Amino acid sequence: MVAINCDMGEAFSIYRCGDDEGLMPYITVANVACGFHASDPRVMARTVALAKEHDVKVGAHPSLPDREGFGRREMKMERDELTAAVIYQIGALEGFLRREGMELNHVKPHGSLYGMAARDPEVAAAVADAADVFGVPLMGMSGTVHEEVWGARDAGFLSEYYADLDYRDDGSLIITREHEAFDPETSAQRAVRAVTEGKATSVNGKELTVRADCVCVHSDTPNAVELARAVHAALEPHLS
Amino acid sequence: MVAINCDMGEAFSIYRCGDDEGLMPYITVANVACGFHASDPRVMARTVALAKEHDVKVGAHPSLPDREGFGRREMKMERDELTAAVIYQIGALEGFLRREGMELNHVKPHGSLYGMAARDPEVAAAVADAADVFGVPLMGMSGTVHEEVWGARDAGFLSEYYADLDYRDDGSLIITREHEAFDPETSAQRAVRAVTEGKATSVNGKELTVRADCVCVHSDTPNAVELARAVHAALEPHLS
Amino acid sequence: MVAINCDMGEAFSIYRCGDDEGLMPYITVANVACGFHASDPRVMARTVALAKEHDVKVGAHPSLPDREGFGRREMKMERDELTAAVIYQIGALEGFLRREGMELNHVKPHGSLYGMAARDPEVAAAVADAADVFGVPLMGMSGTVHEEVWGARDAGFLSEYYADLDYRDDGSLIITREHEAFDPETSAQRAVRAVTEGKATSVNGKELTVRADCVCVHSDTPNAVELARAVHAALEPHLS
Amino acid sequence: MVAINCDMGEAFSIYRCGDDEGLMPYITVANVACGFHASDPRVMARTVALAKEHDVKVGAHPSLPDREGFGRREMKMERDELTAAVIYQIGALEGFLRREGMELNHVKPHGSLYGMAARDPEVAAAVADAADVFGVPLMGMSGTVHEEVWGARDAGFLSEYYADLDYRDDGSLIITREHEAFDPETSAQRAVRAVTEGKATSVNGKELTVRADCVCVHSDTPNAVELARAVHAALEPHLS
Repeated sequence: MVAINCDMGEAFSIYRCGDDEGLMPYITVANVACGFHASDPRVMARTVALAKEHDVKVGAHPSLPDREGFGRREMKMERDELTAAVIYQIGALEGFLRREGMELNHVKPHGSLYGMAARDPEVAAAVADAADVFGVPLMGMSGTVHEEVWGARDAGFLSEYYADLDYRDDGSLIITREHEAFDPETSAQRAVRAVTEGKATSVNGKELTVRADCVCVHSDTPNAVELARAVHAALEPHLS
Repeated sequence: MVAINCDMGEAFSIYRCGDDEGLMPYITVANVACGFHASDPRVMARTVALAKEHDVKVGAHPSLPDREGFGRREMKMERDELTAAVIYQIGALEGFLRREGMELNHVKPHGSLYGMAARDPEVAAAVADAADVFGVPLMGMSGTVHEEVWGARDAGFLSEYYADLDYRDDGSLIITREHEAFDPETSAQRAVRAVTEGKATSVNGKELTVRADCVCVHSDTPNAVELARAVHAALEPHLS
Repeated sequence: MVAINCDMGEAFSIYRCGDDEGLMPYITVANVACGFHASDPRVMARTVALAKEHDVKVGAHPSLPDREGFGRREMKMERDELTAAVIYQIGALEGFLRREGMELNHVKPHGSLYGMAARDPEVAAAVADAADVFGVPLMGMSGTVHEEVWGARDAGFLSEYYADLDYRDDGSLIITREHEAFDPETSAQRAVRAVTEGKATSVNGKELTVRADCVCVHSDTPNAVELARAVHAALEPHLS
Repeated sequence: MVAINCDMGEAFSIYRCGDDEGLMPYITVANVACGFHASDPRVMARTVALAKEHDVKVGAHPSLPDREGFGRREMKMERDELTAAVIYQIGALEGFLRREGMELNHVKPHGSLYGMAARDPEVAAAVADAADVFGVPLMGMSGTVHEEVWGARDAGFLSEYYADLDYRDDGSLIITREHEAFDPETSAQRAVRAVTEGKATSVNGKELTVRADCVCVHSDTPNAVELARAVHAALEPHLS
């Protein structure tokens, strides 16, 4: 059983970001921004309501406190300070879930917080301390400190496979600032292979072992909706 | 049965505000700032932990989004926008309560939000919509729109009596920008009279009827700790 | 002699807003956001550089401190506080102009600050106090408190005519939350008539007297570039 | 000729920070916070006015964009982004100087920005690019990247000597999170020796060569005013 997840609710003020309405029908889990890198209380309220409408589960997508940098600028925070910042964000999101009668599904850190937690056990632990308060799994990348630290949690770890990005020979992701359009069919085939066989192929043709508890699609890929639709159709028999 | 409440956790960054450690022993309920007019996630974490240590109940003290103005600048917000802003703050605080195994006790709006809700039924309703999500009472002033709108809620309304401020003949409060020192014994006597007889005397000597579900002391009165101690000692037999 | 002005540089973080590159060739004066309702330092740097490239003059477009509300939520500020907020923003913009060897052309307040200054002489005076520090004209609407207060300034007042909005019989503007597409030719003809004859026609066909020191086009009208091109072509002989 | 400098105007909202009124009489140069780590437009206006009253020169004290962390959390910013952030802050301060008919004296980065620029030539260069727009000296520590990069600037470099902190044998400063009280007479003697002989003694008694274009006193040392008074009295013959 697998989930299709996507970052959602990253609009802010008058600014739009991603086609949330278009994508919701093709995902099963939404990582909802919590106001520190994107979103604001009204956007959060609307995003949670939209997820409910589409029967999509909601996880928190907390960030470093960096709205101007969209959470993509690394910051040095003390451990208890970081834990508090993440509890704050998850709690805020939970308020909106409570209004809709929904439960928090998981936590997936955003941007630089995700990246720092993949390398630094102290950061990963700070995030885990926050997620533990809510008793939900953390979502991240297998083969990194995410799995090392979060895999040992009682509440568990969910490993993402990226259907719309390429992997290096060492299993790491090639992350580009601006995501390029990606062939939907290729994405769909990769997703199915990752889910059913636990296999992927690197950009250089090397065979990789992957763990795909969920398949991530990005909302800022130019053909994001089309891609999500193809991935959803191909994974339908496996969706939780 | 009566509570003694005080606004708490209004520090921010390196800045201190009020003697929370000194006051906690003499109150029974803390209205904890939620990061919109004061406080930050770490201050919230510490304030909730401090409250727990002293067996003090915690309510949310949400504000208009106005840190620079300490929540004292009126802002025009749409109703759903305001409700979302308040849900966000209460939810965030609840995260810290959950960590300490505590439950949210009530909601008391801060500053201009408190004042606007005392006059404008639309604002009062927007705040009530948020508090209803959490099923807790709203704290405010009797004889105002607070009581009118919040008194009709299922989750109820708690009326505050101010032991360290003077009242006008019409029952309204004389609020000064900077609170002056107030005689602790006078405060204590007034508090007991309000609680046991439901009576107060205006600055001009007029007899007033008051409802004191809780007695509020301010942390920014120069002799705040001494005053809280006196009020606490006098109300001891009546404390819930 | 007339100018064509447009609000510019209202992007923020990863978010885009308006087609600044497309519009710059057709305007002569840019009102550049200063970071309080939109923009950030890097966006400001780029916007000023873009204006210079197109030989477009730059004015400051300061706002109430309200990024989440895009400067559209009214706030009550004390007069000296508001003046300081506007000086801060104009000064910040001037830093970028200085780098490009450009001079500040004017100040045009944004959103609710513009609206409040059109009704409230205290707000208009607070803004004027700030603009006076820089010795530049203020841009606004004739027939409002703008003209009343700012028209008396040594540094002068510039009256805007809106080529892409309709006017009521009393000369006031019909402002819609979302601007609809507007016929470019109609806009161009209206602009020429306002500039050459000082006349406009209300939605009900009433003849209005207008003062058009500059013609404003909005960047968020769906066909903004096309419209600006038409207005620019028609006004070419009259441009300063 | 030497200056006595101190960080000033680090209050924010209702929060106080340091005894600016008490210190102004004993310094000759103020490093004024610009709103990114502390201060707000009204505090800036008041601080600049206070400096003028005391005939104290004003420099900008820009920071990383980190109010919650008081500019003490390191952040990774791109070079042009950092330059723009610093231009923004200096420009904003210059607006207030212009109102008072004063000129910008220098730029001294705050907190982590100061520390990062002392180690990283890229950061130092980004700050220099901003200060160059205003043609003023940068203030920092000799023997660090500050001197290396800023010493080569046309507008020059001013080296600070810290009269209220201890130095290690390698000439680096022992910076404590909370500054302890420091004997005023010792400070004064050290300041005179640094200024007249270019000498200091490390905590271990080692003789150090120092360059003291200005002597820095901290406003958060418990006996800051007393200390500044002693330093000022001792340096009087040498003050510029």
